[in-house]
Amino acid sequence: MILVNGKTEDRIAITDRGLQYGDGLFETIAYRTGIAEFLQQHIERLLLGCEKLGINFTHVDQLEHDITQISNDLANNDGVIKIIITRGSGGRGYFASPDLTATRIVSSHPLPSYPTENTAKGIIARFCQHQLSDNVHLAGIKHLNRLDQVLARNEWTDPTIAEGLMSNADGNIVEGTMSNLFVVLDNKLMTPLLTHAGIAGIIRARLITIAQDYGLEFEQRDISRSDITNAQELFVCNSIIGIWPIRLIETRSYPVGPITQLLQNLLSKSPK
Amino acid sequence: MILVNGKTEDRIAITDRGLQYGDGLFETIAYRTGIAEFLQQHIERLLLGCEKLGINFTHVDQLEHDITQISNDLANNDGVIKIIITRGSGGRGYFASPDLTATRIVSSHPLPSYPTENTAKGIIARFCQHQLSDNVHLAGIKHLNRLDQVLARNEWTDPTIAEGLMSNADGNIVEGTMSNLFVVLDNKLMTPLLTHAGIAGIIRARLITIAQDYGLEFEQRDISRSDITNAQELFVCNSIIGIWPIRLIETRSYPVGPITQLLQNLLSKSPK
Repeated sequence: MILVNGKTEDRIAITDRGLQYGDGLFETIAYRTGIAEFLQQHIERLLLGCEKLGINFTHVDQLEHDITQISNDLANNDGVIKIIITRGSGGRGYFASPDLTATRIVSSHPLPSYPTENTAKGIIARFCQHQLSDNVHLAGIKHLNRLDQVLARNEWTDPTIAEGLMSNADGNIVEGTMSNLFVVLDNKLMTPLLTHAGIAGIIRARLITIAQDYGLEFEQRDISRSDITNAQELFVCNSIIGIWPIRLIETRSYPVGPITQLLQNLLSKSPK
Repeated sequence: MILVNGKTEDRIAITDRGLQYGDGLFETIAYRTGIAEFLQQHIERLLLGCEKLGINFTHVDQLEHDITQISNDLANNDGVIKIIITRGSGGRGYFASPDLTATRIVSSHPLPSYPTENTAKGIIARFCQHQLSDNVHLAGIKHLNRLDQVLARNEWTDPTIAEGLMSNADGNIVEGTMSNLFVVLDNKLMTPLLTHAGIAGIIRARLITIAQDYGLEFEQRDISRSDITNAQELFVCNSIIGIWPIRLIETRSYPVGPITQLLQNLLSKSPK
């Protein structure tokens, strides 16, 4: 089911700036056991993104109404709810009149069929060649300019490789193509700084809160390739997959370690 | 008039990767006096972009047919022909099956109504705050990830300012929001290197050829903010505007100098 500005629709105007320029934002929400998980956090991030990009989106009530309608349609089926907000349709080239009406797209999709052992036994990951674009103004925002992720994800077709890690121009590892990365190094939990690239994920934020509330040593910092080699534990996370331990990158293998298991356990008990 | 895969249509599937990820390319072609100007160069750049992004677009014959149909529809009216090619519709997240069929969109638009004195007397430009994303893999390509240009162009509403110059993270000036930049410094024609950011424009390429054929001293190199201050002449160019001299940036004014006038003259006589 797809709703465009609240109406059942599967197409959008060619003139929409989402298509013309990637001028918009998106959210990907897990819908499980009748709950759109972390919904308020997703909406807050969306609104923060709109503010940062100067997108005039004020129809939060209607958005929540759309999500309720999509949820009702999913009923007891688990799935994914995707929200796209674009700056709207038209404008003269890159210039957009500030009174454009944002376009609101809410759609439901089946949950991807990932192997269940990804969570318990861990995944095989790889290093991607394609690097993340560097831009302090756009870093952290879940905007629609996603060519970097598309090019990185299409570097491999081997279905046994579940995720690729992406670096920035400095060679530091920032995130996965569809996930954030955490590292346990010197018995300390770390996640890459997102000051120049990367998406500030909802699960990433929740895990930081969980780790700090639990009293784990935690740091956001640059993570080099050798930090990955030296790590005791590695995992990736996002709203759909939760936490996937990484058990192998190239020739380096990792255990599904105690901090990863602790965080999986705490996340599963965390209110959604 | 809009043709989507050869059929009159004004909408596109929500699932198209152009909307979902900005996963595509575009070209903006001037149609004047019955001619789609520099058409072969535009098509060549488009095909090069498809190759770089791994987009499986082979329907060049159909694209040329679409352009003919759009041109016939424009008839004796001048206008702009815009081409968008996306990777197509669908895929599992960022992953795209290599056998996706590219989406082909060709549309006509009125020529923008720029003041005629822009060409002869020059324009007022400004420096933009928003910086270009840095990515060696994407630099030069006219792809659909254009948030940088959108954000930079929407920094000002003053209609007397015709263009904004954008810098990269190093502070070097790379291009305008919708144009390439040329500088005359120490009596030498220069244009910024596009190794890390920027679009390799059709008029930029033609002007480089023209300058070299004419025997002008020419160099592609990094252009700093102080190079702009010290320049003897400055101009921006693209397929629609041709060459616009810059007569003022902030408090610094520039003449419409002899090299700019020479290149305007040679460009106007150059085969299109």
